Amino acid sequence: MSKPRIAISMGDPTGIGPEVTLKALAKRRVRQRLTPILVGDLDLYRETAAALQLRLRFVGLGDATVPAGRIPVRVISHLSAKERRAGHPTRAGGRAAYDAIREAVRLVMTEQADALVTAPVCKANLAAAGTRAQGHTELLAKLTDSEAVRMMMVGDRLRVVLVTTHVSIARLPKTLSRRLVLDTISLAHETLKERFGLPRPRIAVTGLNPHAGESGLFGNEEARIIAPAVRDAARRRLRVTGPLAADSVFPHAVGGAYDAVVCMYHDQGLAPFKLLHFADGVNFTAGLPFVRTSPDHGTAHDIAGRDKADPSSMVAALMLAAKLSSKTTRSRTRRAA
Amino acid sequence: MSKPRIAISMGDPTGIGPEVTLKALAKRRVRQRLTPILVGDLDLYRETAAALQLRLRFVGLGDATVPAGRIPVRVISHLSAKERRAGHPTRAGGRAAYDAIREAVRLVMTEQADALVTAPVCKANLAAAGTRAQGHTELLAKLTDSEAVRMMMVGDRLRVVLVTTHVSIARLPKTLSRRLVLDTISLAHETLKERFGLPRPRIAVTGLNPHAGESGLFGNEEARIIAPAVRDAARRRLRVTGPLAADSVFPHAVGGAYDAVVCMYHDQGLAPFKLLHFADGVNFTAGLPFVRTSPDHGTAHDIAGRDKADPSSMVAALMLAAKLSSKTTRSRTRRAA
Repeated sequence: MSKPRIAISMGDPTGIGPEVTLKALAKRRVRQRLTPILVGDLDLYRETAAALQLRLRFVGLGDATVPAGRIPVRVISHLSAKERRAGHPTRAGGRAAYDAIREAVRLVMTEQADALVTAPVCKANLAAAGTRAQGHTELLAKLTDSEAVRMMMVGDRLRVVLVTTHVSIARLPKTLSRRLVLDTISLAHETLKERFGLPRPRIAVTGLNPHAGESGLFGNEEARIIAPAVRDAARRRLRVTGPLAADSVFPHAVGGAYDAVVCMYHDQGLAPFKLLHFADGVNFTAGLPFVRTSPDHGTAHDIAGRDKADPSSMVAALMLAAKLSSKTTRSRTRRAA
Repeated sequence: MSKPRIAISMGDPTGIGPEVTLKALAKRRVRQRLTPILVGDLDLYRETAAALQLRLRFVGLGDATVPAGRIPVRVISHLSAKERRAGHPTRAGGRAAYDAIREAVRLVMTEQADALVTAPVCKANLAAAGTRAQGHTELLAKLTDSEAVRMMMVGDRLRVVLVTTHVSIARLPKTLSRRLVLDTISLAHETLKERFGLPRPRIAVTGLNPHAGESGLFGNEEARIIAPAVRDAARRRLRVTGPLAADSVFPHAVGGAYDAVVCMYHDQGLAPFKLLHFADGVNFTAGLPFVRTSPDHGTAHDIAGRDKADPSSMVAALMLAAKLSSKTTRSRTRRAA
């Protein structure tokens, strides 16, 4: 069986993305598990590998075959030394990060790669490239014409799916809707079934308010929005429980009662998740036509270029992408048979 | 040195309060550490000990001295068998729970006890007793004329202090104020210093919104309310940091960077806290004139009377109350000297 081919977008060239990517690819267990295809700036990768004293060799990806032991790079930019200087974000770098994502998506969509792993981008810098997307998730949805995508955080002890992400607390009650909650539950169900190979996943759904509203005492969104969405999902025969008090559901999920927790907002899901998986959490995008993961950290410009970045989360993202894309391929084959 | 005397209010007589209290007092290490004074229903304690086959003997607390080996009970009710039936809350039970709290507070305020531990009450039932307090914390503030009290969750890995508790998400942005945040930081500081014996405690303060608002992108409460309160606190020479993103502050606190995390709302603090301290978390009330702790769970009527309740949190509450009241006594003595 051949190894899954993982397209890896460069991320912001002045952040820690290239560093954690190469540190991860230098690990034997990562190289044994997958075939990487870097999408980014060849000079930057060479320079980074040299600075980190990693024995990695690269080759530009063209029509010719890739010599054994070399890592293929789909070249999308030729940044100057100034434009790619670690710790100093540039417009050209933002543009290159954007182009890398677009090209990496194309590789997966045209089946030249089996899954996508993205290195972190700088949101403000991405805007300079002329996209309005607030981050990877939104951008990938747009590039692939996906109707509904959700951020799902994956660790070996806990999985969390977010109904909303970058919404202020003040706007949260008006942003939530029965439809949004139901769509998230459905997407969580489909993803756990199709991508994670769980035939009948068990899903917990949190409330919005303290004690899930305590029977309407502290808010009515549970009765108006969340409980009806849970009933809708149950009617579709999904195994779903909620709304549950957010302060007590996580220990139960970690204990094995649920395969994922659908959370109403960013901190409700991510604060508990990161407490368990600070270094090795993986961001998975539910709802895309392919497997996409990314490390659970940002560009960390403050430590870029100083050999200080921990590649654990990138390693976890690569390993999970490899595992899930094999699973998906197998299930496709099974269905075709 | 004599052992600290801990007044323990009965809690709702039909919940698991009496069960976890007696299971805890049956442990040698608990009895070695403190002298309990039960405040509740003598018949109920006798009946509960018999049902659980615990070798505990009680004596009504009057003018006479307490025979060695007996647990003194300040009797505040004579509930009928029906009124104290496990799993079936009654109005008379709610009234007795309320009276037990009031009498236990009186014992501590008149220096007949050194600290207070409360067993869980049923909020709805407490209302039947004619009090408007939403729970223990509010009730204790009222009974002791304390201006500002806050819920503080204490475990050996993490301490969390809440700016707000039982407030819906929709009302949260309007409830927060610079004053409320500053008062909470000050109270956390005083409590850690006076009660926990930390001379210069380090306090982290969360933001309200995702990424602490990401420079105003997702909400402005950080800039308008929280950051000014943190500056006020710093001006008073407190060691305070924030507003910090709530999804990443907890691993740092657990790692030892902070002595407590001041959180803006219920689930923001309690979801991470309970993930670490589900069984052994202790609720401490900051701002009272004495040490008060309670187990971090409710009345659990569904399992009451079936010998299923885990006393770990009550054990932790008793041990912490004993530890902190000794510390406070010592510091009082030192200052008097």
